[in-house]
Amino acid sequence: MSFELRIIPLGGLGEIGKNMMLIETPSDALIVDAGLMFPENDMLGIDYIIPDFRSVLDRKGRVRGIVVTHGHEDHTGAIDHVVEAFDAPIYATPLTSGLLEVKLSRAGLLGRTKLNTVHAGTRVTIGPFDVEFFHVCHSIPDGVGLGITTPAGLIVHSGDFKFDHTPVDGWPTDYAKLAEFSGRGVLALLADSTNADQPGWTPSETVIDAAFDDLFRAAPGRILIGSFASLISRIQQAINASERHGRRLALVGTSMVENAKMAQKLGYLDVPEGLLVPIEEALKLPSNKVVLMTAGTQGEPSSILGRLATGKNRQFDLKEGDTVVFSSHPIPGNEELVHRTINRLFQRGARVIYDPIAPVHVSGHANAEEMKLLIHLVQPKNFVPIHGELRHLNQHAAIARELGIPAENIAVVENGYSIEFEGGRLRVCDRVPGEYVFVDGSGVGDIGPAVMRERERLARDGFVIVRLDLDTATSRLASRPSILSRGFVFMPESGELLAAAEEKIREVVARGNGSRLADRLESALSELFYQETKRRPMIFVIVNPVAVAAAEK
Amino acid sequence: MSFELRIIPLGGLGEIGKNMMLIETPSDALIVDAGLMFPENDMLGIDYIIPDFRSVLDRKGRVRGIVVTHGHEDHTGAIDHVVEAFDAPIYATPLTSGLLEVKLSRAGLLGRTKLNTVHAGTRVTIGPFDVEFFHVCHSIPDGVGLGITTPAGLIVHSGDFKFDHTPVDGWPTDYAKLAEFSGRGVLALLADSTNADQPGWTPSETVIDAAFDDLFRAAPGRILIGSFASLISRIQQAINASERHGRRLALVGTSMVENAKMAQKLGYLDVPEGLLVPIEEALKLPSNKVVLMTAGTQGEPSSILGRLATGKNRQFDLKEGDTVVFSSHPIPGNEELVHRTINRLFQRGARVIYDPIAPVHVSGHANAEEMKLLIHLVQPKNFVPIHGELRHLNQHAAIARELGIPAENIAVVENGYSIEFEGGRLRVCDRVPGEYVFVDGSGVGDIGPAVMRERERLARDGFVIVRLDLDTATSRLASRPSILSRGFVFMPESGELLAAAEEKIREVVARGNGSRLADRLESALSELFYQETKRRPMIFVIVNPVAVAAAEK
Repeated sequence: MSFELRIIPLGGLGEIGKNMMLIETPSDALIVDAGLMFPENDMLGIDYIIPDFRSVLDRKGRVRGIVVTHGHEDHTGAIDHVVEAFDAPIYATPLTSGLLEVKLSRAGLLGRTKLNTVHAGTRVTIGPFDVEFFHVCHSIPDGVGLGITTPAGLIVHSGDFKFDHTPVDGWPTDYAKLAEFSGRGVLALLADSTNADQPGWTPSETVIDAAFDDLFRAAPGRILIGSFASLISRIQQAINASERHGRRLALVGTSMVENAKMAQKLGYLDVPEGLLVPIEEALKLPSNKVVLMTAGTQGEPSSILGRLATGKNRQFDLKEGDTVVFSSHPIPGNEELVHRTINRLFQRGARVIYDPIAPVHVSGHANAEEMKLLIHLVQPKNFVPIHGELRHLNQHAAIARELGIPAENIAVVENGYSIEFEGGRLRVCDRVPGEYVFVDGSGVGDIGPAVMRERERLARDGFVIVRLDLDTATSRLASRPSILSRGFVFMPESGELLAAAEEKIREVVARGNGSRLADRLESALSELFYQETKRRPMIFVIVNPVAVAAAEK
Repeated sequence: MSFELRIIPLGGLGEIGKNMMLIETPSDALIVDAGLMFPENDMLGIDYIIPDFRSVLDRKGRVRGIVVTHGHEDHTGAIDHVVEAFDAPIYATPLTSGLLEVKLSRAGLLGRTKLNTVHAGTRVTIGPFDVEFFHVCHSIPDGVGLGITTPAGLIVHSGDFKFDHTPVDGWPTDYAKLAEFSGRGVLALLADSTNADQPGWTPSETVIDAAFDDLFRAAPGRILIGSFASLISRIQQAINASERHGRRLALVGTSMVENAKMAQKLGYLDVPEGLLVPIEEALKLPSNKVVLMTAGTQGEPSSILGRLATGKNRQFDLKEGDTVVFSSHPIPGNEELVHRTINRLFQRGARVIYDPIAPVHVSGHANAEEMKLLIHLVQPKNFVPIHGELRHLNQHAAIARELGIPAENIAVVENGYSIEFEGGRLRVCDRVPGEYVFVDGSGVGDIGPAVMRERERLARDGFVIVRLDLDTATSRLASRPSILSRGFVFMPESGELLAAAEEKIREVVARGNGSRLADRLESALSELFYQETKRRPMIFVIVNPVAVAAAEK
């Protein structure tokens, strides 16, 4: 079927609509973003998930560029995989570009592609696409949305955005450009749906200044602020509060130090002379003159906050009067780990401040009323909710319908579906094949559902290995069977169970050494273990034939 | 050291302050509640956790009674373990008593103890303790708090409570009794801290009526309401809404049907004639005349909602126009599973309504302002925050200090610490030993940290078993080694890795059959696998000596 323009959101299975998008005409293509997904709790052992772009690899020769909207991991984290696969030049704003440079250089891919820096408010021609970068507020500076003029019409991509009227960097979302787009006529708006089920308007980052002031005033000793390493504006707020309250600030941890250095170099972080000090120096200052800021607020046991919570941080420990601030929200699925960390910090004597105790964090994404404003500003003919889970896309679509966009002009699609435009009309087409591409250690995509199911089973009930020597002449046990288990029962206290297992083995062996002795032993033991423990460990029986008679000769 | 009264919260490790409490004089003891904890995400394979009461088992002869405040699992779920251990009579209100009866009868323990039914508003003497049951609002009917007159003074225990002014059953918390306690003088208030970090006042259950009205009006077809099986008042609200909107209601699933039957029998559920229908009948009615209500809103794949989400429900499937309502919040840690279920229901065409899309659920626990009211009503001399994590206890203590209770009269303790009273003064004493008592299958407390660590490692990287036959005469491989793995790599696609492993095995064997060949093979393979995959599976090498020469003779 013919089409003028096609959009395919990519990103593994359909539920998460984020990470990567292909926009193509019949002859040329553009990639927007190249992010990773963090594994869910039941994706055991997986490090992260990258978009499944295998089905669009045939566009390789036609991809004119990779545009990245901002520097967060869920939009940049797969850049090395995408650059290796498509070999196309990258376009991004200065800070995003700086962060991509760090990533590509770590992956040894810096020479592989051209990294073009484009300032918000300017435009660049990429093949048949005329791309206008416009500034949006988000929880990292220098984020942009995109106005993409294509042969089929103007597509507006919101990036990750909120309408913060008092952003930390004083740079609001580019309302004028959005209104200008509407004047030109917008074929389709693709808009961030992350908070579609949250009513109202996301609070401005400024509310955090007041919360910081309160807690800086009340803190008797050191203040430790935990946040995300990429939340440059939060670092700025901590710097500003430190200045207002006569404290010095030390950044702790490689990723935060590196990001801050890059942001400062590029002019995205404004640091008063002498305010930033190295951690070694900060530790020597009086407690009420110091702020330490670090990443790792997701409960990661190996992060600095995680190590402080368990008393295992080497460089410094908690001390009397410390106030710990979680200037972040738990990523869904991390709640238990985060709360456990908070509890342990309390246990070790710290005062811990977190939202909702005080408004020390706000979301970087638009809430429902902001979404409505975006739609009214842009006045698109067609609407495609992007970013967020299917439930968010659906809710965002409901918002668009409320605002008068006809249902047939709205496409709620999971990753992998093609959305085609022709004659100004939108059409949802087939789904390209795709699945989760798990990255585990150095393996990319080699772990599939079969291995995940094995891990689940092992995690639940462990396994048992039985090894027995069978006298080939007599078909009897030549020695006591050895039984080993992991993750099933605590062996030193399971004497009775092991004795019962040995008894069962003897019983089965005594019934004869048929061709399938190992199988028969496995099912007999499986039954015994389930009966005794109501657990179903994996069982492996290794029958080792020995020629006792021959050996004894 | 001498004491007049001692209180020990029990419940495993210290972070969760719930589940069970021992209150004792030097000669007599009382147990309050006997609940279970649900495992966290990283407690792999664990079914549930029971309070660790091993250190107070020596009180067995002195325990005069077990008082249960309400019928939720986290207050009743370990009743069989506690009854078996302490052999004391139980005291509870009618509905709680009915639910306990079901539990004890399932465990074959109904004859083991006396189950005394006590009505809210009355008092009962249990040894030296004079216990007044007073009504509190919570998300299950017939919940109570306790006024316990002890030789040392009056202790007020809030149970799980909120101050709902318009509860579904029309029965508000017993303010008069609380005020009366304050007139008599309260030695200590033990109060529910679950929502201490939530500002304001928990919304009344009544807000759900309006939300139900809205969605009943808008629903074009069937309505499926998911909630908790014990949330009897929500069942009542669904019944009332069904009546208002001319629909019949069917309860689906054993636990919900049984609980509703028990509540109806005891007069806690008011069902208009003919409104409740069996599921078989409901499925034959016109879609816009039917409401189905079920448990399983926590994303459990085996629940009815879980099965509908994956298209695997046998009795009925989703159909065009279905509205699914999640009338519950995810229990912390279940967010991902719940959201995945919601996404899949959307994917299969249902409209899904959940909080915050509409206020179809409210918490059953008091928020900060209600906590303040409780403290002002009771005017206790001493204050002990209970129920909730350490962060909630700390925040509740901060609230009490704000209200003028001196810090030295407040005890924030984790489970296992003794709080002693003497001469009206409070003293925090040593901690009794305790840990998580995991229930896994039929095993109680047999899974400890060692087995959990094994499960974690297996879940992350799986394992490999290598078996090789070694010619005893030549110390060479007598055949190709066999390599088996689970949860490590996908074997059919790992030919290269397996070939490298075989090569490595031959190399190590060629270096000679020392005493520790299996160990040497294990570390060589571990290194190889890490190098190639950056994963660290458990490795077991089984060396099987064979007498090739002898056998060939």
